Amino acid sequence: MTGGQPRTREQRKVDTLAKLAASAADAWVATAAVDAGGHASSYLVPLSLVWIDERVVLATEASSVTAGNITSQGGVRLGLGPTRDVVMIDAELEHVYSLDEVPAGLARGYAAQAGWDPRESGESMRFLVLRPLRIQAWREADELPGRTLMRGGAWIP
Amino acid sequence: MTGGQPRTREQRKVDTLAKLAASAADAWVATAAVDAGGHASSYLVPLSLVWIDERVVLATEASSVTAGNITSQGGVRLGLGPTRDVVMIDAELEHVYSLDEVPAGLARGYAAQAGWDPRESGESMRFLVLRPLRIQAWREADELPGRTLMRGGAWIP
Repeated sequence: MTGGQPRTREQRKVDTLAKLAASAADAWVATAAVDAGGHASSYLVPLSLVWIDERVVLATEASSVTAGNITSQGGVRLGLGPTRDVVMIDAELEHVYSLDEVPAGLARGYAAQAGWDPRESGESMRFLVLRPLRIQAWREADELPGRTLMRGGAWIP
Repeated sequence: MTGGQPRTREQRKVDTLAKLAASAADAWVATAAVDAGGHASSYLVPLSLVWIDERVVLATEASSVTAGNITSQGGVRLGLGPTRDVVMIDAELEHVYSLDEVPAGLARGYAAQAGWDPRESGESMRFLVLRPLRIQAWREADELPGRTLMRGGAWIP
C-alpha cells in the first residue's frame, strides 16, 4: 500500500503516538467471557479511544458487555485501523471510575480528544483506564518483522 | 457523518452485502481463549474476508492463535469498518479445510476476492468457513435502533 521500505521502529512509534492522540480516534475493542460451562466467547465493538499520560481511556456503560468483560478479564486487546495500517495494543485494567469518582482532569481530557463528554451521557457511564503492556504496529506483511514497539509496559528503545 | 436520515434496514442490507463482496475486504477478527485457571483472554487481528454462498471464509495458519481460538470456541465475532460505518457479524464455525481438503471452487473464489491465494502460502494454511448467525450494521448513534439485519442465521425481512 505504501510502497517503499518498511518503516523503522522509530517511525512506527511516531506514527503510533499520532494515531493515539488523534481527535475522535476510535478503537476496535476485543474482549472475552467464560460462561458457566467454561466455554469462551469473544466480543468486539468500536469505541472512542483517548490517550492520556501513556494510558488508553475508554468510556462505556457500566452494564455493557465490554465493561463487564474488561473488568473480569482485567484487560483488553485493542486495534486501531485501517486494517492495513494497524496498531494493536494489549492492555491491563488499571482503574475504573464512575462519574462521581473520575478525576476532573481525566474527564476533561477525555471530552477534549473524543469530542463528546461521557458526563453528559447518563449516570451509569464508566471510565476505564488501561495501561498498555504490548504495542505492535504494521501495515503490510513486509512490516511484520519489527512490529513490536512496547513489551512488558516499556517502549523498546 | 452521513447527515440525513438513518438508513432503512433494506438499505443497510444492500450496503452490508456490498462490503462483504468487496475486493480485498478485511475484517477485524475477535476470538477468545480460556486458560487452565479458567481466565478468559481476548485476541484480535485483521484478516482478509471473503464472502461465498452466504458464508464468511477466512484463511490463516493452522498454528495461529486465531485458528486455535475459532476452533475451540466454535465461532467468532467479526467487525468490518471503518469504525463509524460498521458491520458486526457473529458466526459459527461450519468447516475447517486443509489445502488437501479444500474444494477447488472455494479456494478459487477466495483467491479471486481476496487478491491472494492461501494455496501459495505454505502447507499449514487452513480455510475456515463460518456461517453468520447475527449481522448488525450501523454508522452513528442514530442508527443503533434497527441495527440487526440477521438473527438466528436468517435475514430479517
